[in-house]
Amino acid sequence: MKINYCMPTRVIMGDNCVFENRGFLRDLGEKALIVTGRNSAKANGSYTDLIKALDANGQPYALYDRVMSNPTVDCVFEAAAMARQERCDCIIAIGGGSPMDAAKAAAGIAVQDVQKQDIFAAAFTKALPIAAIPTTAGTGSEVTPYAILTNHAAQTKTSIGSPVLFPRFAFLDAVYMQGLHKQVTINTAIDALSHSIEGMLSVRASPLTDAAAKESIAAIIDSFTAMEQERLDLKARQKLLWASALGGMVIANTGTTAVHAAGYMLTYFKNIDHGRANGLLLGHYLKVLEKKDRTLHTNRVREIIPALKPGGLEAFALSLDRLLGVRERFDPAELEDFAERSIKAKNILNCVIKLEKEDLLEILKQSVG
Amino acid sequence: MKINYCMPTRVIMGDNCVFENRGFLRDLGEKALIVTGRNSAKANGSYTDLIKALDANGQPYALYDRVMSNPTVDCVFEAAAMARQERCDCIIAIGGGSPMDAAKAAAGIAVQDVQKQDIFAAAFTKALPIAAIPTTAGTGSEVTPYAILTNHAAQTKTSIGSPVLFPRFAFLDAVYMQGLHKQVTINTAIDALSHSIEGMLSVRASPLTDAAAKESIAAIIDSFTAMEQERLDLKARQKLLWASALGGMVIANTGTTAVHAAGYMLTYFKNIDHGRANGLLLGHYLKVLEKKDRTLHTNRVREIIPALKPGGLEAFALSLDRLLGVRERFDPAELEDFAERSIKAKNILNCVIKLEKEDLLEILKQSVG
Repeated sequence: MKINYCMPTRVIMGDNCVFENRGFLRDLGEKALIVTGRNSAKANGSYTDLIKALDANGQPYALYDRVMSNPTVDCVFEAAAMARQERCDCIIAIGGGSPMDAAKAAAGIAVQDVQKQDIFAAAFTKALPIAAIPTTAGTGSEVTPYAILTNHAAQTKTSIGSPVLFPRFAFLDAVYMQGLHKQVTINTAIDALSHSIEGMLSVRASPLTDAAAKESIAAIIDSFTAMEQERLDLKARQKLLWASALGGMVIANTGTTAVHAAGYMLTYFKNIDHGRANGLLLGHYLKVLEKKDRTLHTNRVREIIPALKPGGLEAFALSLDRLLGVRERFDPAELEDFAERSIKAKNILNCVIKLEKEDLLEILKQSVG
Repeated sequence: MKINYCMPTRVIMGDNCVFENRGFLRDLGEKALIVTGRNSAKANGSYTDLIKALDANGQPYALYDRVMSNPTVDCVFEAAAMARQERCDCIIAIGGGSPMDAAKAAAGIAVQDVQKQDIFAAAFTKALPIAAIPTTAGTGSEVTPYAILTNHAAQTKTSIGSPVLFPRFAFLDAVYMQGLHKQVTINTAIDALSHSIEGMLSVRASPLTDAAAKESIAAIIDSFTAMEQERLDLKARQKLLWASALGGMVIANTGTTAVHAAGYMLTYFKNIDHGRANGLLLGHYLKVLEKKDRTLHTNRVREIIPALKPGGLEAFALSLDRLLGVRERFDPAELEDFAERSIKAKNILNCVIKLEKEDLLEILKQSVG
């Protein structure tokens, strides 16, 4: 048994947990930079709750609300500059994966001398303390040490990772998710599902990440029908939020694998939402792995199939299909290019089964060919 | 769903993990104070492995090796004084619960102005960074924020707790447990079992602690026969070590309950080993709770019974009995006194079912009356 497990974020969940646990925000620092997107945090109530908590603490703050989807390096440097200029000594992120990832990268850049062109090679050894308030249930970024940014130089999305980027606190209140559109709910849930499944297939999986992954997979698959029929009440939203935090705890320790590597291609070049991109690839990824698994007797895929519920892989792939609806299709030359690019990603090596370029190409062709 | 979960210790497990991961020790500080007991760390190889790792790092150290069972306040102040005198900026604990708890308390006292008489009331806001190398599989102290010390003023053992006392690193190598005597193995395993069971019955239990507790309970109960027959190979030792770390992660978040509160009486006044004291009380604790549970419909006890394997509570209590052998017996007046004292312990309030003094007395009478 070999384990290397770390998840230092304090996870706080419950109705009104931001306000009720405002003491933790008080501990975070003197003045906070709030990092978020343009609209959603203000619309779903999370921003108001946070301001109420900070005001009750008598804690000043500045606001950076210009994070876009798939945040750019320019964006995080802009946020970091604001943190310095406003003399903020801590960062509070509100939003989905994009604002949280941007906030985490900015927390590092704010206190470390990094040039824009070096950001993906930099070793972050310090960062402003971070609190995260997710407003979607998918990314798990609130409990990971990663910030995934658009990397125009490499034409993909690239992850920055350092233990100092783990948020100190994650506040999980599902009330902010109640107004989420069906498609956002589905895409984000599939992202979380992909984290847990890929985590189980990682060479760094351990009994602790496996236990979290299994619980997370079961909760998300249980919610498939409710998501499809748009019947998610607060309790169901909590279950998904919890499942996505579990998925985050998993990849915080295991990393992701080929689904994310190839999925970034679909997002970067085809502007397909990140969770959907993973979902499009997930079923065929598992099928290709299962085939190789049978030859190699690694048994790892066979072990996770029971977690996918009765009916096994086929039934799972079909219900995933139903959720995704009509698939995007791309021409073979493009897919060849995506396979060529993504086989070089470092998370390819993370999988218990070694994948070749041909395997990636098969997954891409079956999924979106 | 209400959660407040934190477990910031990096858990590293595997053969030779101390030496292989010596880089983490390097990160801990310039000069380490090693805190341990008189003999066992030197006998089981853990001390040698640690010195080899520190030497390879070129890292100086001092040694405090005078921790006794159920460490006293004097002992931890002596260790803290040595840390200051030797200008150590980090602490490495090797041993069972006693050396680890003493080391954690010393880490706080070394950097904070605390008087001996105030130690149990002090709020620790800083501590030297700590690494822990358990050499028994039971306490879980390597992943908790607690240090439990003998409290002569209150005539019991009392816990000091602060998030700053979480070890930064826990190194789990089961090789150090291979020579453990049968009785130590059993007592420590029962301690871990008690952590996981009490954790599930805590008002602070959450889905994450429940998942860890269930895995831990199953692993320990699976090992009952092998422990009894002294057939524990390295793999079985690893399983127990892992189970005890899981139990630690549980109580780090849930706290303990009445078994520990009343068990401290048996240890303080009757010098019964801590794990054994818990084991003596555990079966009847569950029976009393189950009875109250049926009246109150709290359902929590009924939920954990399946984790105790086929045969339920009765069969579980019987196999625990077999492991414990002949029970100590004490007279009613003494038990009355123990119940009177332990009902005031703060972990009594931690249980999902409110216990009265009469309940504690019944548990004590049935267990050791």
